[in-house]
Amino acid sequence: MDSNLKKWSAEFLGTFWLTFGGCGSAVLAAAFPGVGIGLLGVSLAFGLTVVTGAYAFGPISGGHFNPAVSIGLAVGKRFPAASLPGYIIAQVLGAIAAAALLYFIATGKITGPVDVGGFASNGYGELSPGKYSLAAVFATEVVMTAIFLIVILGATAKRAAGGFGGLAIGLCLTLIHLVSIPVSNTSVNPARSTGPALFAKTAAMGDLWLFWAAPIAGAILGAIIYNVLLSED
Amino acid sequence: MDSNLKKWSAEFLGTFWLTFGGCGSAVLAAAFPGVGIGLLGVSLAFGLTVVTGAYAFGPISGGHFNPAVSIGLAVGKRFPAASLPGYIIAQVLGAIAAAALLYFIATGKITGPVDVGGFASNGYGELSPGKYSLAAVFATEVVMTAIFLIVILGATAKRAAGGFGGLAIGLCLTLIHLVSIPVSNTSVNPARSTGPALFAKTAAMGDLWLFWAAPIAGAILGAIIYNVLLSED
Amino acid sequence: MDSNLKKWSAEFLGTFWLTFGGCGSAVLAAAFPGVGIGLLGVSLAFGLTVVTGAYAFGPISGGHFNPAVSIGLAVGKRFPAASLPGYIIAQVLGAIAAAALLYFIATGKITGPVDVGGFASNGYGELSPGKYSLAAVFATEVVMTAIFLIVILGATAKRAAGGFGGLAIGLCLTLIHLVSIPVSNTSVNPARSTGPALFAKTAAMGDLWLFWAAPIAGAILGAIIYNVLLSED
Amino acid sequence: MDSNLKKWSAEFLGTFWLTFGGCGSAVLAAAFPGVGIGLLGVSLAFGLTVVTGAYAFGPISGGHFNPAVSIGLAVGKRFPAASLPGYIIAQVLGAIAAAALLYFIATGKITGPVDVGGFASNGYGELSPGKYSLAAVFATEVVMTAIFLIVILGATAKRAAGGFGGLAIGLCLTLIHLVSIPVSNTSVNPARSTGPALFAKTAAMGDLWLFWAAPIAGAILGAIIYNVLLSED
Repeated sequence: MDSNLKKWSAEFLGTFWLTFGGCGSAVLAAAFPGVGIGLLGVSLAFGLTVVTGAYAFGPISGGHFNPAVSIGLAVGKRFPAASLPGYIIAQVLGAIAAAALLYFIATGKITGPVDVGGFASNGYGELSPGKYSLAAVFATEVVMTAIFLIVILGATAKRAAGGFGGLAIGLCLTLIHLVSIPVSNTSVNPARSTGPALFAKTAAMGDLWLFWAAPIAGAILGAIIYNVLLSED
Repeated sequence: MDSNLKKWSAEFLGTFWLTFGGCGSAVLAAAFPGVGIGLLGVSLAFGLTVVTGAYAFGPISGGHFNPAVSIGLAVGKRFPAASLPGYIIAQVLGAIAAAALLYFIATGKITGPVDVGGFASNGYGELSPGKYSLAAVFATEVVMTAIFLIVILGATAKRAAGGFGGLAIGLCLTLIHLVSIPVSNTSVNPARSTGPALFAKTAAMGDLWLFWAAPIAGAILGAIIYNVLLSED
Repeated sequence: MDSNLKKWSAEFLGTFWLTFGGCGSAVLAAAFPGVGIGLLGVSLAFGLTVVTGAYAFGPISGGHFNPAVSIGLAVGKRFPAASLPGYIIAQVLGAIAAAALLYFIATGKITGPVDVGGFASNGYGELSPGKYSLAAVFATEVVMTAIFLIVILGATAKRAAGGFGGLAIGLCLTLIHLVSIPVSNTSVNPARSTGPALFAKTAAMGDLWLFWAAPIAGAILGAIIYNVLLSED
Repeated sequence: MDSNLKKWSAEFLGTFWLTFGGCGSAVLAAAFPGVGIGLLGVSLAFGLTVVTGAYAFGPISGGHFNPAVSIGLAVGKRFPAASLPGYIIAQVLGAIAAAALLYFIATGKITGPVDVGGFASNGYGELSPGKYSLAAVFATEVVMTAIFLIVILGATAKRAAGGFGGLAIGLCLTLIHLVSIPVSNTSVNPARSTGPALFAKTAAMGDLWLFWAAPIAGAILGAIIYNVLLSED
C-alpha cells in the first residue's frame, strides 16, 4: 500500500472512530432512562477513541484525527504543512461517514420515527447546551484547543516518557469534555463538528464556522506558546 | 502442563472472567437503588475484564476471550486457524460456567425468589434495550467488532508501543459498550452472548444467532480492512 | 532503616490508604445528595488505592496491603511464608488506624451527631447491601479473591509486560467492586473488613469471620489454580 | 529560553490547567441537569489535569503545579529549596489566571446574570460542602496531602517503575477527591484554593488560611514519614 494512502486510511478510520464513538455515546447512551452514562460517560468515550486510535493508528499516521491538531502540529514543526490537505480531507470524510452510520442506527427503532434533535452537534447561544454566549463558547474552544496542542506537543516530545503519549493525549480529550460539554458541547475538532452538523435537526450548520475558526486559532496559539516557552531546543 | 492445555485454561479463565465480571456488573450492580453503577459502570467493567485478563493471561494464550477475535486474528494471519476449535470451545465453556455461577449468586437473596429477567443477554427488536431494529443491531455489531479487530491488530503490531496493547484493547471494549449497550446490550463476542442467553427468562436464545453471525462477520471485515489498508508489510 | 521495618511500614501505610481511601469514599461521598459518586466511584476509589500504593510502595514491600494476598502469594511460592505474621499484623493495624481516623472525620459535622451506620463494613444476609444469603456471599468472596490472585500472579510473572502490573492489579480491584458491592459490600481483604467492623453501629463484627475465611480460601484456591494450570515452569 | 523561565512557564501553565480543568468541571458540569458529571467526574477531572500535565510539563519543571508539593519535595531532598519562591509565584499566578478565565466563561450565559456561588472554593464549617468542622477539615487536608507526597516520592523514586509516575500521581489526586470533596471541597493545593476564593460570592477568603496551612503541614509530614520509614538510602 502506498504510504500516503495508508496514512489517509488511518486518519479516515481514526476520525470515523472518534466521531462514531464519541457522538454515538452522546446520541445513544447519554440520557438512556435510569442508567444513562451522562456527560461523564460521553467524556470518557471521546477520550477513549483517541487512546485506542493513538495506539492502533498512531504508528501509521501520527494519530491526529482532527484538522486543528494537524494544523497545530504543522505550526509546531512536527508535521509537514504539505501533508495538510490530504489529512484534513480524510478526517472530514471519516467524520461524515461516522455521522451517516450513526444516523442510520439512531433512527432504526421499532417503536416509530426518531427525532435526532441536535445529534451531538456543537453550538453557541441558543444551541449551546447551557446557553453560553458566542464569546464564552469561542474563548472556551480557543483555550481548550490551545492546551490540547500543548499537551500533545509536550507528551510526544523527545524528552517525554516513551509510550505514554497516547494515554495522556486521549485522557486530555476526556478532561476537555468533562469541563466544556455544557458550554459548547465540546468540539476542539472541526471534523467532529462537521459530521453531526450535517444530520442535526437544528440550525447547527449555521454555527459550524465557529468550530472551524476557534479550534484552529487555539491550535495555532498552543503551538506558538509551546515553541516560545517550552520548546526542547 | 501441556502447552495447549495451558492455553485453553487461560482462554477458559479469561472468558469466564469477562462474562462473570461484565455481565455480573450489569445484573447485580447496574440498577442498584440510588447508587447503581449504570451503563457507564458496566462499560468500565467489561473493559477491565480485558485489561486485567490481557496482562494476566495474554502472555500465555494471547488473551482473546472471544471467538470472533480468534477468528479475526486467524484471518489477519496472527493466529493459526488450526487452533480455532480448541480456543472457541474453551471460550464458550468459560462463558457458560460464568453465567451459571452468576445465576447462583443473583438468585441467592434472603428476601425471596429473584426474577433474573434478560440476565444481561443480547437481543434485537423487542429484546434490544432501546428497541432497536434487527438492521440497526446487526450494523452496530458488525461495525463495532470490525473496529475492535482493527484496534487489536494495530495495537499489537510490531510497530506499536510495547506493553500498552492490553490497556488500549480493554479500553476499546469499554468504549464499545459506552456506545452500544442501548442498541444490542453489546456483544461483539459470541461466547459472552451464549452464556447469559442460556439462563435468561426471556426469548434471548432466539436472537443468539445474530450475536454469532454479526461479530464474526465484523471481525473478518476488520481483519481484511486492516490487512488491505494498514498492514505493516 | 531495617529492611523488615521498612517493609512493615510500607504495608501499614498501604493498607491504611486502601482502607481510608476505599471506605472513606463509601462513607463520605457515595450517597452525597445529588452529586454522589455512587458504587462506581467507590469501586474506582478502592482500585486507585492499589494503583497508587503499588507504584509507591510496591518496590519496597511488594505491595500486598491484604492478608489474603500475602497468604496466596506464599502458596504461589512468590513470598516467604515466614514473613506472613509481620505483614498481616502491619496490614491489620493499618486498616484499624484508617478506620479510626475515618470515624473521627465522618462524625465531625457542625450539624450535630452523625450515625455512621454500617460504616462500609462487610456483611451477609441482613447486613448484605442487597440482602444476599451467606452462601451467595461466601461464593462471591471466594471466586473474586481467587481471580484476584490469578491476576496478581499472572500480571507480575516474568513473562508479563514490565511495569503494568500495578495498573492491572488495581483495576482488577475496581472491577471486583463493580460487581460485588451489592452482594457483600466487597471485601476480598480481611484487613479492610476488620477496620470498619470495629466502628460500625451494626452487628458487623458477627459477620467478620466470613471475610477472613472466604478471601483466604479464595486466595489459596487462586494460587493453586495458577500453579497447576498456568505456571511458567 | 532561559531554563528558569521555561520551568516557571511550565508551572504556570500546569497550575492554570489544574485549576481551570478541575474547578471548571465543578462549576460548569458537576450539576448539569440530568446528565451532570457529579463528584466522580470532578474527581476524574482534577486527576487528569495532573496526568496530562505530568507527561506534558513534567520533563521540564518536574510537574508540581502545587506549592505544597514543591515544599514537600524540598523537604524530601528532591527539589532545591532556593527554587521555591519562583515556583510558588508561578503556581499561584497560574491558578488566579485560570479562575479569572473560568469566571468569564461561567458568567457568559445568554439567559441572564449568573451567580457563581462558592465557585469551587474550599471551606470548613458552614462553607464545607457537607458541613464538616474545622478539625475534621484540617485533619483531612493534612492526611490527604501527606499521603499525596508519599505517593509522589515513592512513585518517582529510582526503584519505581519508569514512566508510570504521572499516572500514579494523577490518579492519586482523583482518589483524594473521591473521598474528600464532601469534607473540604478538596484542596491539598494552596494555589488551587487561592484562585477560586478570589472570585467566590461566599466568605471563602476567610477560610483560605487553612488551605495554605494544612496542605503545607501535610506535605512536610509526608516527606518526613517517607524519609524516615521508606527512603531508598
